[in-house]
Amino acid sequence: MREGDHVVPIFNGECGDCAHCKNAGTNLCARYRVDPFKSVMVGDGGTRFSAAASDGGRCPVYHFLNTSTFSEYTVLDAACVVKINPAAPLDRMCLLSCGISTGVGAAWNTANVTEGSTIAIFGLGAVGLAVAEGARYKKASKIIGVDINPEKFALGKKMGITDFVNPGVNEKPAHEVIREMTNGGVDYSFECAGSLDVLREAFLSTHDGWGLTVMLGIHPTPRMLPFHPMEMFDGRRLVASVFGDFKGKSQLPEFAEKCIHGEERINLDGFITHEMPFAEINEAFELLQEGKALRCMLRL
Amino acid sequence: MREGDHVVPIFNGECGDCAHCKNAGTNLCARYRVDPFKSVMVGDGGTRFSAAASDGGRCPVYHFLNTSTFSEYTVLDAACVVKINPAAPLDRMCLLSCGISTGVGAAWNTANVTEGSTIAIFGLGAVGLAVAEGARYKKASKIIGVDINPEKFALGKKMGITDFVNPGVNEKPAHEVIREMTNGGVDYSFECAGSLDVLREAFLSTHDGWGLTVMLGIHPTPRMLPFHPMEMFDGRRLVASVFGDFKGKSQLPEFAEKCIHGEERINLDGFITHEMPFAEINEAFELLQEGKALRCMLRL
Repeated sequence: MREGDHVVPIFNGECGDCAHCKNAGTNLCARYRVDPFKSVMVGDGGTRFSAAASDGGRCPVYHFLNTSTFSEYTVLDAACVVKINPAAPLDRMCLLSCGISTGVGAAWNTANVTEGSTIAIFGLGAVGLAVAEGARYKKASKIIGVDINPEKFALGKKMGITDFVNPGVNEKPAHEVIREMTNGGVDYSFECAGSLDVLREAFLSTHDGWGLTVMLGIHPTPRMLPFHPMEMFDGRRLVASVFGDFKGKSQLPEFAEKCIHGEERINLDGFITHEMPFAEINEAFELLQEGKALRCMLRL
Repeated sequence: MREGDHVVPIFNGECGDCAHCKNAGTNLCARYRVDPFKSVMVGDGGTRFSAAASDGGRCPVYHFLNTSTFSEYTVLDAACVVKINPAAPLDRMCLLSCGISTGVGAAWNTANVTEGSTIAIFGLGAVGLAVAEGARYKKASKIIGVDINPEKFALGKKMGITDFVNPGVNEKPAHEVIREMTNGGVDYSFECAGSLDVLREAFLSTHDGWGLTVMLGIHPTPRMLPFHPMEMFDGRRLVASVFGDFKGKSQLPEFAEKCIHGEERINLDGFITHEMPFAEINEAFELLQEGKALRCMLRL
């Protein structure tokens, strides 16, 4: 890499040298994997930002998720910076840093969604709709969106959502509705809500024998997985996916190409529902929390 | 099939016609899959055995696990009978009906153990040692047996067990011992004990990023899976395996061939630790429960 390269930062880095990076089965780099408790640069254990302290000196501003990107300039480990095609628009490529890669990659890499297969996606935020966009690209035959916000259906149609289930208005549990719609259950379900009750619905909505549920939600709960051990013997499987199982430095450049070329490209435009000045970052977060926005483009 | 064919009965049948049988990803036939609560023939819902009742008439003797084989003669659905090479010794082939196929198949089909990989097996009964035999056949580099009965090590060496861990004498948890032995954890672990505490140890004994734990034990417990949802994001995976993911009628004949030909064959002899008359069946079960026997051959 050199000065002037176009890059996107990644919170789940790739050193390229460790046993994990050399193993095709994981994108969890031994040194640079996502770690919300890490607050310094990996190389020297130090920070690069500081702020005025009350004693007149400087105090460190710690790093977050390898990137620390709510700023005009930042310092990142090279393992967390991906060089991309300079012809690609940077104000779309930044979406590849997190949720869109996570969702599309969960469909492509973790689940390996195949043509004609059936999908259910629980939680239609940016990650869930990116799963839909990834499944649409792979020509899934039915992509069922599940959300308690009915406005998400109109939004999701652009990303390939073909059917909508609203657990807030159905009398039956979502998994029963979905099994009826799909002759016994979907081939793949994706949990993008961060709720164990939703995770259980997602698991039960897949077909026995071969259904696969991919966990994408973050679960800040003291509860353990809500499955009885014998339920695993019905042939349903459960896996978690970090960053869509993309190895960031190796695989994002090719993914970026699939977002800028051709009729059948991954369409990033639909994910940017709002544009606003950087100073309104807190209002942007409110829109996200209220489910009104997918992604807000903040401009300096 | 015709009269005189040599066959082995299977508790997990294969009709060959249902959506499950036509799906390469599962061996759970829609009609004939294992079901401990089924007590009749699938075809007509009836039974074939009866016994004298106290009122002078006959009462039905119900079927169990599609096979009902603790008898000299039995009646089975054709979907639950596998024709095998008549040159194969029947007093060894009967082992393919359950535990040996389950263990070997878990290594071959469910985990797809590769040459040079590392394995830990929790619980060294016939199923666990069959996993070892399957992994030995696939040239795994290290096969760690875990059991609280130290006598199992000598028995397991024949099946390829290279190392032994006894959680009853170690101060550290088994998974810590195994991680130290294997530079961070094994590639595959197998739980063959039917205990959730053991399952957790098996899960944690695999390498983060790519470790796979295969559940084989039966868990008659009210407890749910002992994993926190966020633990799944370390890249360890958990799957259950029924009958080693063998499709019985399609795949057992080929497996039987691998048990009778060549230097590197699957060796069934070591699994038969006792031979005794059928009348001593209760003593045979005691030997199993005490961990003294793997399989007892009962002769009429």
